[in-house]
Amino acid sequence: MPERDARIGVVGATGAVGTVTLRLLRERGYTNVRAFASGRSAGRELDDGIVVEEATPDALAAGDLDVALFSVGTSASRELVPHAVRGGAVAVDKSAAYRLTPGVPLVVPEVNGERALEHEGIVANPNCCTIPLTCVLKPLHDAAGLRRVRVSTYQSVSGAGAQRMETLLAEPQAEHDLSMDWAWEGDETDEEAKLRAETRKILELPELPISATTVRVPVLVGHAEAVWLETERPLAPEEAVQLLGAAPSVRVVDVPTPRASTQTDDVLVGRIRPDRAAENGLVLFLACDNLNKGAALNAIQIAELLLARQRVAA
Amino acid sequence: MPERDARIGVVGATGAVGTVTLRLLRERGYTNVRAFASGRSAGRELDDGIVVEEATPDALAAGDLDVALFSVGTSASRELVPHAVRGGAVAVDKSAAYRLTPGVPLVVPEVNGERALEHEGIVANPNCCTIPLTCVLKPLHDAAGLRRVRVSTYQSVSGAGAQRMETLLAEPQAEHDLSMDWAWEGDETDEEAKLRAETRKILELPELPISATTVRVPVLVGHAEAVWLETERPLAPEEAVQLLGAAPSVRVVDVPTPRASTQTDDVLVGRIRPDRAAENGLVLFLACDNLNKGAALNAIQIAELLLARQRVAA
Repeated sequence: MPERDARIGVVGATGAVGTVTLRLLRERGYTNVRAFASGRSAGRELDDGIVVEEATPDALAAGDLDVALFSVGTSASRELVPHAVRGGAVAVDKSAAYRLTPGVPLVVPEVNGERALEHEGIVANPNCCTIPLTCVLKPLHDAAGLRRVRVSTYQSVSGAGAQRMETLLAEPQAEHDLSMDWAWEGDETDEEAKLRAETRKILELPELPISATTVRVPVLVGHAEAVWLETERPLAPEEAVQLLGAAPSVRVVDVPTPRASTQTDDVLVGRIRPDRAAENGLVLFLACDNLNKGAALNAIQIAELLLARQRVAA
Repeated sequence: MPERDARIGVVGATGAVGTVTLRLLRERGYTNVRAFASGRSAGRELDDGIVVEEATPDALAAGDLDVALFSVGTSASRELVPHAVRGGAVAVDKSAAYRLTPGVPLVVPEVNGERALEHEGIVANPNCCTIPLTCVLKPLHDAAGLRRVRVSTYQSVSGAGAQRMETLLAEPQAEHDLSMDWAWEGDETDEEAKLRAETRKILELPELPISATTVRVPVLVGHAEAVWLETERPLAPEEAVQLLGAAPSVRVVDVPTPRASTQTDDVLVGRIRPDRAAENGLVLFLACDNLNKGAALNAIQIAELLLARQRVAA
């Protein structure tokens, strides 16, 4: 596999997702990986001997990267991604900066991988709730036509970054609470708005009615989602189980939980049953490791898809 | 208020809900309260000086109680409640034993308090998720007619009893997880089946389509619920806010959380917005102290309603 020699830069290498990205690249046998972070972390030697470089515009534009995997905040991505692209790298960006930009593919390889090949330098990686949701919705849509989706989320604190994990670990158990720690867009959290807009873009259903309530729960890693969906044609739960059992990166289990999801690369889905409140309605529950398939792994899979199709220099 | 002299027995007095029941009765000025529990706890002196008596059939049937507030398991309620009734007490039972029994009123005082007056010895107290849900649904139903309800829950471990609280406190944070720790009825948890059947009985809408996913979260006290509802007639979010703001025991806030709910007797409701996935649809989020209004307080309010109307001997 020649692409294991690809020159890969991990930007935001010391964060929650960046750390997982480096581990996954090592496990997959990549030999030419560099780590970039803010000036504060520059010079630090990581567990695997890689020394962190400062993520300056010049360093990223130097022309010695085939792929740059960005897991930094949205404003840092806006600032830095164009420099990596200018230097000839393909940027796979995990922030919200480019997800809805026309012309930038927003990709879950199992769902719309072909779209990645249309990139002009940037491929966007979806939100950590959107990835598992679309993995589950896609085969059901192909079989029966999605009419409507409602989701409530149970999102772990690691989705808010490494610092929030430390805060949770330091907080007395009796003070743990639910929260909605997102920015607001009118009457929604921006997470709810993202989940709708990104799901529509990935499934190429720009009018899909989708309504979400996003909630942070005091769990360290692993996001879960309670999903109601309605389809154009009837879809029996047994049929949905069969479709999901055959879908890539999806595993049907009895009761998906965040902890179980952290031991797998798959999206766990279960509790698949008829919606007693609707015709052609199904209810299900899913869980996914938000740092792994929900972020780092999905981005690496995008990079591998491009490397395999020679849509990057390597 | 003469009913403060009522002879009240608290059965299951050492459990999570029983402990709150005794505290609330003390705060409300009741002077004639006795505590009953299993033989294991009999003889123990509680903080307020009350000595726990064993909850034997004979003790409960002795005829010296006006009201018996039961917070024991369903099978213990089935065994013991009839003895209290035989002794002349009105039993307010917090277990699932009698909730769906024809002829036994299932009561949330703010929603269907008048039904309590029809009792023949037993009044059932609903499930800790049903109580806040019906407090919120009732004024909306009266105004616009409920057509359909979907709920996903975020239930704290105290709903599973005092021992589960200890387990959570002893467990390392990194092991905290979601769970669905209920018995199963076909493809549903029995909690999901209860939420539907009890909501229908209380609202007197026996056919109301209602679909629930119940989830335990690693929070000590306070249950939350994400709710989607559809109405027969259009109901603007502003109108719903106004109706809920005027509803008894309901308080409209921006973002209800379990921790905030433990500092109040009210059901907190917020995030009231249109359901972008349905016509005549609303989405909202609620939180309620499952040990207080979700259990102990509601049962005491039932007892007070009966005492005020002289439907018990006192």
